[in-house]
Amino acid sequence: MIGLSSYVGVMESEINFAEEQQPLSPQANSWTNKQDQKPKVFGGFVLVHAGAGYHSESKAKEYKHVCKRACQRAVEQLKAGVLAVEAVAAALVELEDSPFTNAGMGSNLNLSGEIECDASIMDGKSLHYGAVGAISGIKNPVLVANRLLSEAQKGKLSAGRIPPCFLVGRGAHDWALSHGIPSWPSEKMATKFSLSAYRRNKRKMELAEKMEPGQTKRRRQSSENENGSGCLDTVGAVVVDLEGNVAAAVSSGGLAMKHSGRVGQAAHYGCGCWAENGCNLNTYSTAVSTSGCGEHLIRTMLARECSSAMQTEDAHRALLETMQNKFISSPFLASEDRVLGGVIVLRCCRCVETQPSQNIQGILVEFLWSHTTESMCVGYMSAQDSKARTHISRLPPGTVPGQSLAIEGGVCRLMSVADMYSLPMNHVLPSVDWIRLDAPLSLSVRP
Amino acid sequence: MIGLSSYVGVMESEINFAEEQQPLSPQANSWTNKQDQKPKVFGGFVLVHAGAGYHSESKAKEYKHVCKRACQRAVEQLKAGVLAVEAVAAALVELEDSPFTNAGMGSNLNLSGEIECDASIMDGKSLHYGAVGAISGIKNPVLVANRLLSEAQKGKLSAGRIPPCFLVGRGAHDWALSHGIPSWPSEKMATKFSLSAYRRNKRKMELAEKMEPGQTKRRRQSSENENGSGCLDTVGAVVVDLEGNVAAAVSSGGLAMKHSGRVGQAAHYGCGCWAENGCNLNTYSTAVSTSGCGEHLIRTMLARECSSAMQTEDAHRALLETMQNKFISSPFLASEDRVLGGVIVLRCCRCVETQPSQNIQGILVEFLWSHTTESMCVGYMSAQDSKARTHISRLPPGTVPGQSLAIEGGVCRLMSVADMYSLPMNHVLPSVDWIRLDAPLSLSVRP
Repeated sequence: MIGLSSYVGVMESEINFAEEQQPLSPQANSWTNKQDQKPKVFGGFVLVHAGAGYHSESKAKEYKHVCKRACQRAVEQLKAGVLAVEAVAAALVELEDSPFTNAGMGSNLNLSGEIECDASIMDGKSLHYGAVGAISGIKNPVLVANRLLSEAQKGKLSAGRIPPCFLVGRGAHDWALSHGIPSWPSEKMATKFSLSAYRRNKRKMELAEKMEPGQTKRRRQSSENENGSGCLDTVGAVVVDLEGNVAAAVSSGGLAMKHSGRVGQAAHYGCGCWAENGCNLNTYSTAVSTSGCGEHLIRTMLARECSSAMQTEDAHRALLETMQNKFISSPFLASEDRVLGGVIVLRCCRCVETQPSQNIQGILVEFLWSHTTESMCVGYMSAQDSKARTHISRLPPGTVPGQSLAIEGGVCRLMSVADMYSLPMNHVLPSVDWIRLDAPLSLSVRP
Repeated sequence: MIGLSSYVGVMESEINFAEEQQPLSPQANSWTNKQDQKPKVFGGFVLVHAGAGYHSESKAKEYKHVCKRACQRAVEQLKAGVLAVEAVAAALVELEDSPFTNAGMGSNLNLSGEIECDASIMDGKSLHYGAVGAISGIKNPVLVANRLLSEAQKGKLSAGRIPPCFLVGRGAHDWALSHGIPSWPSEKMATKFSLSAYRRNKRKMELAEKMEPGQTKRRRQSSENENGSGCLDTVGAVVVDLEGNVAAAVSSGGLAMKHSGRVGQAAHYGCGCWAENGCNLNTYSTAVSTSGCGEHLIRTMLARECSSAMQTEDAHRALLETMQNKFISSPFLASEDRVLGGVIVLRCCRCVETQPSQNIQGILVEFLWSHTTESMCVGYMSAQDSKARTHISRLPPGTVPGQSLAIEGGVCRLMSVADMYSLPMNHVLPSVDWIRLDAPLSLSVRP
């Protein structure tokens, strides 16, 4: 059923990471306890995506470049000592600011020719969540989501009112302004590219409607390749800091030519992103961010499904099975001919290095991406790296988007805060290992 | 840890339903196969709620009355042969139209003195879902949600566009109008009661803000009893039809004095309602609708959690444990002093009657409600009943809302379509059994 292709991944070595991974007992999993005894050292790891969709070869450089910048921004923040949730927001701002991604600046226009954005963020430490839907006139929707999250963490409002975690439309815009986030002229959000895509899509739609007069009866037959214009480039990121806290975020301009007021997975709890620190119940900390067709990602609640699957031993198999059984073959999408989406996933736990002679403790980070779309652009970087690595993952030739999937990933070892100080001052830190988990898979589970 | 109180429930007998319940194998669980061979007989069961919150004795009659009417409306629809999803929408319209509930007409006003409603509906047969958030100027938000659901079931829009499942704000309002749902003057949505509650709340807020000048620092201390004014009366319903299809819906005006644009659990996938027909993976069909503090219900994804817990054998225990472990003691709400919410749950499976001499097949419906709020008003009715039964469930005296819970429920046997015709024409149908599952429980799991 599973056919391995000969596609060559981006990672250098092929070590089976499962052997070197020794999660401690759940009780030993609170990483933040000994923090205050020693001066702090900061760091962590970030994985970003510039969307699951179609990334043309001609624009590959741009997509990789924005992923690289987003990783660097997050790492700068991690090195400055912020928590994972602030670092992930910083990565998102960079991704939103790129005119090439479908988020913030350069977002898809809706049916009415307006830009309405969705974004959400989740902090695995506090398990708080903030989201905005169909928001206009704000340059960085993720910053509004992040502000909702941090305001909610402060507790109740006056007269015992419960602070909101999700705001939409005009109300979200006004709330942002009243919390110091400036308004941004809507006309500055659109780019030459997004405007020309809007005009092209509008012509295409008018033509389709002329050719389909019995539209309501026949509309299922019109299976245009809505995946062919790079219009699914939702962006997102997942981060772990050196304390072992995880965070995830996602931001999107939504489907091209969507109805005004439509909210996609990027603002849906459990669908756009998920982050949960390890605890008594969960051995691993997990963080997930999704991209693709919002309605498919909503109805399968893909972010949360991937997160909970990550608690089983084999992360690669868990993600593969989730993408296969809970997404492509999901009973919730039985009537869909093609199921389009992608995820980035990060999970981590404390580990003990057995191979080097020193008995060094650290954080083992496993990171993966998987997509059913033609391509997905990712970037990743640890605070120990001098620069980010980027990659455009593509379905192997001959496979059908929406019916097949690709899966890749790697492993990175982070030194934990306490352990950094047990090393001699001039000890050379072991370089991060990038390990290919497996050759990318191409599954054809839908005939 | 669990203390049984001496509270007397609404049910007459105390039979342990677990003994008479014989779920068939999953393969035998497709109830709709033999439908076309015989003339159709219609029926089913409905359970509604007029909110988890506080229902004063003085208004008890009104709340019960609206629940009764909602049940009757759904049963009329079931008898007319509609599927569960249409019957549940009909029940919601009645609940929304009542000026006493916080949904549709008579909804809570937001900070700006406007009414913005949330509603969603889910069809367990198609697993489709529709939702509207922060919608104004529409008398019955649930009808917009239901129309989104039915439009999505028709497949793609022109030019291969994917139809939306969630619309908010002005866009949702405009979509409704373009689909034949009339606008309704906003001033007609407010009632004398909702307007006076708004003025009272506004004064209370202004007073609180005067008394709390260091509001951001001190706001956690202001633990006003936001549960004391009947302001959590979100409404909802769950239905099973005689084909065994389930559906669920929920509708809400949201928290009083919420920020404009705030969307609560009633429009959140997996949080406000859930419905899933039995299938190869799930022995039982389940339907859930929630009520209470939206942010608590969102962050715990309570509707979906209850639904998936219902696949274990003992429905009562499953709901009790879910309310205890996934709601009151949820790690997602660790910082909350009181966790406020309620659910109605229905699950069903084919069953074989062993006690009567005839070997009659039917549908066994188990229905439950549970709440951590002071009270919850419910109503229920099967198509075989001449009138609905209603009940206001209250926490036992001396227990603390938000830290304790009550749980009650019953069982109802429905005759399946095929089997009705194997009975002699003048056979007296066995009356529906209302069985008390257990005395209501009062748990104190938060100190």
